[in-house]
This record gives sequence, C-alpha cells and structure tokens, in this order.
Amino acid sequence: MSLGKKCAAEFLGTFWLVFGGCGSAVLAAGVADVGIGWLGVAFAFGLTVLTMAYAIGHISGCHLNPAVSIGLLFGGRFRAAELIPYVIAQVLGALAAAGVLYVIVSGQTGFESVGGFATNGYAESSPGGYSLLACGVAEAVLTFFFLFIILGATDSRAPAGFAPIAIGLGLTLIHLVGIPVTNLSVNPARSTGPALIAGGAALQQLWLFWAAPIVGAALAGVVYPLIAGEAESS
Amino acid sequence: MSLGKKCAAEFLGTFWLVFGGCGSAVLAAGVADVGIGWLGVAFAFGLTVLTMAYAIGHISGCHLNPAVSIGLLFGGRFRAAELIPYVIAQVLGALAAAGVLYVIVSGQTGFESVGGFATNGYAESSPGGYSLLACGVAEAVLTFFFLFIILGATDSRAPAGFAPIAIGLGLTLIHLVGIPVTNLSVNPARSTGPALIAGGAALQQLWLFWAAPIVGAALAGVVYPLIAGEAESS
Amino acid sequence: MSLGKKCAAEFLGTFWLVFGGCGSAVLAAGVADVGIGWLGVAFAFGLTVLTMAYAIGHISGCHLNPAVSIGLLFGGRFRAAELIPYVIAQVLGALAAAGVLYVIVSGQTGFESVGGFATNGYAESSPGGYSLLACGVAEAVLTFFFLFIILGATDSRAPAGFAPIAIGLGLTLIHLVGIPVTNLSVNPARSTGPALIAGGAALQQLWLFWAAPIVGAALAGVVYPLIAGEAESS
Amino acid sequence: MSLGKKCAAEFLGTFWLVFGGCGSAVLAAGVADVGIGWLGVAFAFGLTVLTMAYAIGHISGCHLNPAVSIGLLFGGRFRAAELIPYVIAQVLGALAAAGVLYVIVSGQTGFESVGGFATNGYAESSPGGYSLLACGVAEAVLTFFFLFIILGATDSRAPAGFAPIAIGLGLTLIHLVGIPVTNLSVNPARSTGPALIAGGAALQQLWLFWAAPIVGAALAGVVYPLIAGEAESS
Repeated sequence: MSLGKKCAAEFLGTFWLVFGGCGSAVLAAGVADVGIGWLGVAFAFGLTVLTMAYAIGHISGCHLNPAVSIGLLFGGRFRAAELIPYVIAQVLGALAAAGVLYVIVSGQTGFESVGGFATNGYAESSPGGYSLLACGVAEAVLTFFFLFIILGATDSRAPAGFAPIAIGLGLTLIHLVGIPVTNLSVNPARSTGPALIAGGAALQQLWLFWAAPIVGAALAGVVYPLIAGEAESS
Repeated sequence: MSLGKKCAAEFLGTFWLVFGGCGSAVLAAGVADVGIGWLGVAFAFGLTVLTMAYAIGHISGCHLNPAVSIGLLFGGRFRAAELIPYVIAQVLGALAAAGVLYVIVSGQTGFESVGGFATNGYAESSPGGYSLLACGVAEAVLTFFFLFIILGATDSRAPAGFAPIAIGLGLTLIHLVGIPVTNLSVNPARSTGPALIAGGAALQQLWLFWAAPIVGAALAGVVYPLIAGEAESS
Repeated sequence: MSLGKKCAAEFLGTFWLVFGGCGSAVLAAGVADVGIGWLGVAFAFGLTVLTMAYAIGHISGCHLNPAVSIGLLFGGRFRAAELIPYVIAQVLGALAAAGVLYVIVSGQTGFESVGGFATNGYAESSPGGYSLLACGVAEAVLTFFFLFIILGATDSRAPAGFAPIAIGLGLTLIHLVGIPVTNLSVNPARSTGPALIAGGAALQQLWLFWAAPIVGAALAGVVYPLIAGEAESS
Repeated sequence: MSLGKKCAAEFLGTFWLVFGGCGSAVLAAGVADVGIGWLGVAFAFGLTVLTMAYAIGHISGCHLNPAVSIGLLFGGRFRAAELIPYVIAQVLGALAAAGVLYVIVSGQTGFESVGGFATNGYAESSPGGYSLLACGVAEAVLTFFFLFIILGATDSRAPAGFAPIAIGLGLTLIHLVGIPVTNLSVNPARSTGPALIAGGAALQQLWLFWAAPIVGAALAGVVYPLIAGEAESS
C-alpha cells in the first residue's frame, strides 16, 4: 500500500472521527428532553473509530490520531519515516471536518456563533471547572490506557479481528470518564480541528492537548512490551 | 439464490429497518422521564441493520436501502440488473412497515393524528430548524461515509464476519449526528414509507432524501476503490 | 448432553433473563435524574440473552423462551420431544427469578407493594394505553422478527460465533420499540414469572403474552426456510 | 509468562476498572442535563473489562477481581499458588486508581470533599435504601451469574474470541440491575480502593463486599461444571 493511499485513508478517517464525534456533541448533545447527552457523544466518538478500523484498518492501520501514531512508534509497531505524513493527514482531516461541520451548524435558524464547538479546555474552559493539573493528569492517564489497549488488542496473541471493537469501545469508555474534565481529547488532531475554527481560549490551551496525550501514549509504548513479553503486531 | 428470494429478504429487512427504527422514534423517544430519546432511536436504527445483516446477509447482501444498492453498484459490488427489483422491494417493505406501525400508533388512547411520524425534513421541517443547504450537506456527507464503511468492512482484506457490527453501529453513529438536522435518512426507502402515510411537507420534501443520499453513496462507490487499491467484496 | 443438563441450563438462563431484565426495570428504570430509563432496560434484556448465549449456547442452545423453542420447532431446528421439558424449565426459572427479585425489592426502606413489577399488559395495563389490537399486533410482529433473526443468524451460512450478538442486541431493539406498548414480552415465560408474583390484571391478561408471541414465532419458523432456501442450523 | 508479568497486568487492569468505572460515576454520572447517569456508569464498568480482556487476556487471563480469581479456582481454571499474588495486585491497582482519581476530583473548582466517591454500601449507605439482606442477596446472585458467564463463555466449546464481549457486557448488565441496591460491587478490590480513600461507612461495610461476591463466585465455580459436563477453559 502506497504512503499516499495510507495518508488519504488517515485523512478521511480523521475527518470521520471529528465530524462524527464533535458533530454529535455540537448538534445533538444538549437538545432538551431527547438530546443524546455525554453518553451519546461518548458512543459517537467510539463508533467513529470502531467503524473506520474495520473500513481502513487494512489500508493505513487506522490511527486517526497523532498520539496513536507516536505510541505505536514507541511500541515498535510503526515506522518513523511515516510519522510526519500521517500526522499532517490527520490534522488536515480534522480541520476539514470542522469546516464542514461549521457549514451545517451555521445553517441553523437563529445561528449567531459556534460557541464551544466541542473544543477541549482546562481550568475556566474545562466543562466542570477542573484545574490544569487535573486536566493534564486525566488526559495523560487516559491516553496511556488507550494506547495500552491498542497495543494489547492488536498483539498477535489476542483474538484476531476483535481489535476494532476493543479500541472503539475503549474510546467510548474514555469519554465517559473524561468529558467533564477536558471535554476529552486524547487526540491532538481532534483538538486542533475545532480549535482552529473556534479560536480564542481553545487555541491558547491547545498545547496541553498535544503534550499530555503524547506523553501518555509514548509511555504506553514503552510499558506494554515490558509487561507483555514477546509482543508483536497482528 | 433466486432474485425472488433476494427481493423477499430485502422486503422483510427494510420492513424491519422502518418498523424498528421509526417505531422506536414514534412510540418511545419522547415519553417523559423514561423515554429512550434520540440515543435510543440511534441504537434502534443501527440494530435493525446489525441484526438483519446477520440474518439475511447470506441471502440478499442486506442492502435495505436504495442508496446502498446504488453505492455498491458504483463500487463494483452489485449487478445493475438487480437494482430496480431491489429498490422496489425496499420501498414496498418500508411502506408496509409504516402501515403496520400506523395500526399500532392509532391504537393509543386519545390518538388524533400521526404527527411527524418519524418523517424526514429540512428547513421548517428540520427538527432543529436547519437550512436546506445544511440538510443536504449532512445527508450527502453521512451517506458517503456510510457507504465508505460498508465498502471497507466488506472488503476481503477486512476481518471476516464483523461487517454487520461495523455497518450497523455505523448507522447508529450517523443518527447520533444527524437526527437534529433532518431526523436522519441516508435511506430513500426509509424516508418514503412514513412520508406516504404522513403526507404533507414530508412528501413535498421527499426529493431531497432521494437526491442527497444517492449522491453521497455514488461518490463513495467511486472513491473507496481509489484509496483501497485492489478491493474486492468478501 | 443429557436433557437434564439442558433443562438445568434453560432454568438458570431464564432466571437470568427475568432477574436481569425485569430487575433493571423494577429497581433502576424510574429513579430520578440518574435512572436508566427504558433504554437501560432494553439493553439489560438484550444483554441477558447475549451473555447466556455465549455461556450456555453449547449446552442447551439457549432458548430461554417458549416462543423461541416453538419457533425453532416449526423451523425444523428443535426436537418436539424436548419442547415440554424446555418450557417447564423456562417457566420455573422465570418464577424463581421473580421470587428472588421480590426479596430484594421488598427490602427497600418504605416498601409497600411491588406495583407493576415489570409485568406485561394491554389496554389500561399498557404503559402508553395501547389497545388490545395494537398490543397483539406489536407482540406478534416483534416475535416474528425475533425468530427470523435467530433462524438467520444461526444459519450455517451466516458468520459463525456472532449469533449471540445479533440475537441479544435484537432483543434490545425489540424492547426499544415495544416497551411503551405492552412493557414488551415476546416471551411467555418472562411474562408468567412476574405475573404470578404481582397477580391481578397481569394474570388476567397473561393469555395474550402466550398467544401473540407463539403465533409470531411459529410463522417465522415457516417463513424463514421459504426465503432462505437450504437453511440449516449451525 | 512469569508471575511478575501476570501481576503487573492485573495491577494495570484493575487500575483501569476502578479508574474508568468509578471515575465515570464520580465525574460524569450526576451532571445536570448531559450527565451519563447510571446507564453510562454501567457501560463504563463493562467496557473496562471488555477492553482489558482483549488487551491482557493473553497475559494474565484478565481477572481484575478477587471474586473472579476465586470462582475460577473453584471451577478448576486457576492455580491456587497464584491466588494471593493476584489478589494483592488487584487490590493495589484499585487503590492506586482511587488515588489518581482523587487527584483529579480534588482539582475541581469549589472542591470540598470526595462525598460518596463511588463506594459500595448497604442499608443507610445503599443508594436506594435497601436492607443488608437485600444487598447481600443481590451481590451474591449477581456475582454467581458473572462467574457463570465467565466460565461458560471461556469454555472451549463456546465460540473463540467472543468471551471479552460476553463478560464485559455482562458486567454492564449487572450494573444496570444492581447500582440502585449497593452501588454495585461484585468485586472486592473495586470496593476496597475507593473505601480506603473515602473511609467512614464505606470501610465499616466493606466486609459485605468481600463476603457476598466470594460466596456467589465460589458457588458458580462448583455449579457450572455440574451443568456443563466436560467443561474446560479455552
């Protein structure tokens, strides 16, 4: 598979992650009475990954997330030469999705501004008012386990074919814990797309949603092989 | 498998999609306190496809949706000679389901009219008041990715047996995003059945829910093979 | 596998279906603010079947439901000689579960009566006030498709191992549609257990929740082979 | 696989169970309007087990729970020599998770005390005010079926690879029933971690959440082989 095709798949896959996950949050979460709430948003994000992992796993590996690419690199499952192209495709996909989502959102009767636009934030921008420390710990710990699940479920000794279910529903679980804290990122590309549209605090705080997920992911890439022994990707 | 048996399967499968999906919306979504909300409706639609894909996938391929049949045709996975019979069976199944659903709905104490009856709409008929442009974009983009998931998950290089999970839960995800915009179609047959019972604006706006899903589906049928390379159906 | 062991498995499995499904409805559905609602009850019922199908499918086939046993009999997948023992084990399991559930429910501070106790009903006993006709149609149609899914997903041509997912989540879907109508049965044993504890209208109306599911199930047992051709159980 | 690596996996896995399950309860369950409620908490607990079972099942078997280890011991699927190390690793993992969760929770603006901190309790500490008898029965019965599902789904005659789905979603189901009664344990380690942070009644009542799950689990370890015949672990 050529790098160009892989990057096209990462672009479309990350578009889907942001369009589906952030789209559900912006459009459907807070509607009175029948809105889907954070539980629905958690399922939406998880299902973007579950569905794309079955759709493009055989093309690009379906990272959709710079932290995942970096974690797999540290875990010996991804080639350094492909890292930058993957990350660029992921960020562009996220940005394109945020743009298309803006077209839809701004088409609502009475539209005035995008508001939060599903951006991530800490302290005064945290949904529940959590401190920078709390937000950084949450993002790093949750990304650590996200990568740990990815590395374990794609280990050649794990049951074949089920990894997309484990990884996708793992992302659902991560949102069930973390949305109140940071609106949940664990994915620098997912944070960057909406932040570039919304601007303001979301851009100023964007650094944390690159730093914390990458730290957690890299750590998992180091730890998993120590525990699992002769791990190899399936 | 004869075309007659395939069409019988498509008829029953599309009946199930409309009866289960629209039925959950009409009967259970808006009930106070314990109602299932849009999250429940999203799961209901997705599970109609997941269940039928395991039940009749080996009979007809389980399209249940003219846009799916057309997308698979563009992707080289479906024969043109079977398109019209499939679409007719799908629309008849949807209409029959809407009819049986009407029998149940009209049996409620105090019943006066079917109201929205889970029909799709734009502008003043959009649940959240979204413009024609926003609704068309949403339907086309969401159907594009629905077909992209179908084409990818049934690719011979994807894990065998899991496609119904990816496709069904993909439809759940699509509803989590799109119900507030158009009440979510991505399926011309699903739009047509209830519209023929409810009449009025639902019928006048029905054209969009044939046009936009078909455009998105056909595009996916063209794009997927370009990215995936030597794709073939499993 | 001896008939005794099969019946022991059916007893425990049906206990689980009623304890888990009705238990979630009675204990957790209506609690203010954090209650699980009908969506949670729908998942609970479905997951009782999903979990037991993996746990005892290899022992008894995991029917847990007289209508399922009868539908499989009509579909040529079950031996008539085992029908009565299976049904007795199922009803006893449901009754035992209702009894243990009563012990828990009656241990709540301020307990006065079991109230609805998750029983099924029509007309004035229908959750949403649906007529006898509407309730009978809903139960028969939903049971027809439940058996259709079971027969299709366990067909030897369907992907192996996935049937419990299709069947369990199919029951979730059925509840998402039908709880407002009859509180949803599609299972005479599930209706009988709680009715014997609650008494009153639930007992007087119990006949419908034997008749309608059995009619729908038997019909599916006849129809599926006609559509599917050379079907056989996997 | 060395016992040290197995225990490291059990430590991380039980950390994840408590951090994800209790974290979702403490951070996200009760938020107004968009909170995930008990349904979200039930999914969170179940998905911790589903994800870890795919990630570390091939390392330690993924018990994450002293009652599971004991039930598997009674069922002939686990070696007695490893029981104490496993239980120690599980309790330490749960305690570490509760500690990290405390760091996040205490970082919220206006934080004063951890409150319930997702601890388990009976009588006046039961969420719904259920008696000691009701709580003990619920925990024992639910743990019995949890182990029954584990033993059945990992039986060599059950479909391979699906056990994590059955077991994880089984834990979701168990929470849908039992959260109102005891806040749901079925896992002594999960009860111990938060209780050591919260103190007070949670510590005084902790004995029940060791005793009842262990009784239920041991009973299932005895009963399953009697019903299943020549069971063996897969």
